[in-house]
Amino acid sequence: MLKIDTHAHYLPHTWPDLAKKYNDDRFPVIHHGDDGRARIYKDGKFFREIWPKTWDPQVRIDDYARFDVQVQVLSTVPVMFSYWAKANQALDLHQSLNDHTAEACRQYPRHYAGIGTVPLQSPRLAVQELERCTDQLGLQGVQIGSHIQLADGQHWNLDAPELFPFFEAAADLGAAILVHPWDMMGSESMPKYWLPWLVGMPAEQSRAACCLIFGGVLERLPKLKICLAHGGGSFPYTIGRIEHGFNMRPDLVATDNPGNPRDYIKQLYFDSWVADPRALQYLLDTVGTSRVMLGTDYPFPLGEQEPGAGIAALGLDAAGQARLYHGTALEWLGLPASRFA
Amino acid sequence: MLKIDTHAHYLPHTWPDLAKKYNDDRFPVIHHGDDGRARIYKDGKFFREIWPKTWDPQVRIDDYARFDVQVQVLSTVPVMFSYWAKANQALDLHQSLNDHTAEACRQYPRHYAGIGTVPLQSPRLAVQELERCTDQLGLQGVQIGSHIQLADGQHWNLDAPELFPFFEAAADLGAAILVHPWDMMGSESMPKYWLPWLVGMPAEQSRAACCLIFGGVLERLPKLKICLAHGGGSFPYTIGRIEHGFNMRPDLVATDNPGNPRDYIKQLYFDSWVADPRALQYLLDTVGTSRVMLGTDYPFPLGEQEPGAGIAALGLDAAGQARLYHGTALEWLGLPASRFA
Repeated sequence: MLKIDTHAHYLPHTWPDLAKKYNDDRFPVIHHGDDGRARIYKDGKFFREIWPKTWDPQVRIDDYARFDVQVQVLSTVPVMFSYWAKANQALDLHQSLNDHTAEACRQYPRHYAGIGTVPLQSPRLAVQELERCTDQLGLQGVQIGSHIQLADGQHWNLDAPELFPFFEAAADLGAAILVHPWDMMGSESMPKYWLPWLVGMPAEQSRAACCLIFGGVLERLPKLKICLAHGGGSFPYTIGRIEHGFNMRPDLVATDNPGNPRDYIKQLYFDSWVADPRALQYLLDTVGTSRVMLGTDYPFPLGEQEPGAGIAALGLDAAGQARLYHGTALEWLGLPASRFA
Repeated sequence: MLKIDTHAHYLPHTWPDLAKKYNDDRFPVIHHGDDGRARIYKDGKFFREIWPKTWDPQVRIDDYARFDVQVQVLSTVPVMFSYWAKANQALDLHQSLNDHTAEACRQYPRHYAGIGTVPLQSPRLAVQELERCTDQLGLQGVQIGSHIQLADGQHWNLDAPELFPFFEAAADLGAAILVHPWDMMGSESMPKYWLPWLVGMPAEQSRAACCLIFGGVLERLPKLKICLAHGGGSFPYTIGRIEHGFNMRPDLVATDNPGNPRDYIKQLYFDSWVADPRALQYLLDTVGTSRVMLGTDYPFPLGEQEPGAGIAALGLDAAGQARLYHGTALEWLGLPASRFA
């Protein structure tokens, strides 16, 4: 059966050293070691180790073949978002990443689709780069962060009016949008136990979902195709709480949009990576099988180490499996299955 | 059937004006209007309106009688925690609240049990007041916040070594501890849509659970009786993710305690207020019926408006209902059912 992993991170073997070019240590830079591994540094500090399966398209294809998964939808790693940077400098980075992703898709069209990355700190440039991604590079959409912290101290959640033209363009283009958690709330007060990843990331996804809903973005753009990575984080488990808050205090919650939050679930997609069979079943029961698609967070340790195993363990019938393994993904990407035949 | 609401907030009709006494606007003060309502102010700003059912014990008993719920376990409202204050000034407030809660329990012993509040910014004073609560006032334990932000900028999660003597004393005393979300992560960047309550609170409970587990507090104190309010927030839904993180990156997660986080669920209690029948069923399936107890967040709008209705809707057998309505609560409180006969 065709299996498409919609949440698979990909980086170039190397990228322009913008820290040097723009004299700004906040840009992530990569250093390759003698052992085949590489290390990303940011703010002059070690951020993360990566390996050939992060950047080598053939290694990735071979790795996935072990799990009978044929297609990966490539996206960059959120550390590259650089929303804090000057927009034109960030665009420099985004463009090189997008060109690189598109190259893998051209080279291995049966194995890769791709979504790009855009400098959301400038919605104008973000729209321009989104259009370049979909119209010129053949990418299916873009990945964005769960919120935007700007250099000048301004903060935009996804309901920010400044971002609406971006979402409007995405809806017009039929672009797939993957919302990825990043810059996690509470990080500064949870330095231990990897808690920004274990506690903050699920909350980031709920923040994003709530802002898209209560800000009226989904109401005004019914054709917008948003997928929430990490199974929507804590949002699906707390939708009852969120709906209850909406019902009890519309003066606080329904200030910008009168719709019941639960009614917008049918406009959202969710990847399947919740790391727990019972939580995945809960997700399907809550949002509907038709809204969920295989996603793994490959190749990182917090991701599904056997792509597709969580869905396999559900014991779905063939139609349900087909929907989760590729049907939902094709709908979100706007691609026919023949694209990967 | 005996029904005990373990999460029911209670305030005095009035309390000492510490803002005036200590010349510090950060202390919450109460002003009564002509319409029978009252308003809490903090930092010189309106914080929340409250009503007679917040402070009138007979009104509360009558209100609960409508839902056939006999007992409430009284706790203060988190705005009163005042962990930011000088500890001896905060103790002034905590003591008056604890005396007041104890008075209701003495006056209506069939309808009220109570847990106190302590100035956790001074673990020494907190232990002292905890002992006064359990040994002199007849209270069953205390409520604490999901983390402690100190006046000097220090921040303690519940794994802070400074707090361990407090938890040790609680375990020795057999005191019931209710962990309540407060001072929610992300609040400053989520000003709209009541998101600190809808998104931040569930994350706070997961922060608290993770710190008690990974900090080794539960490992070292197997007799400690902790209940996580709001059904444990996002923790039960993300336990698979948390366990996966522990398995994949023990170098980051298992730094202070080698135990698998899932193994500590059996040492935690959870209240039942998740505002959704499917989420409640998921909670029971994940943590076990024996760990869950009725809790409502009464009398606030985000709470269960018909105390006990969520449990009733589950369709449990009589033994399961008895466990959720009173069995788990009596175990947590360390009280026999005869206390309320």
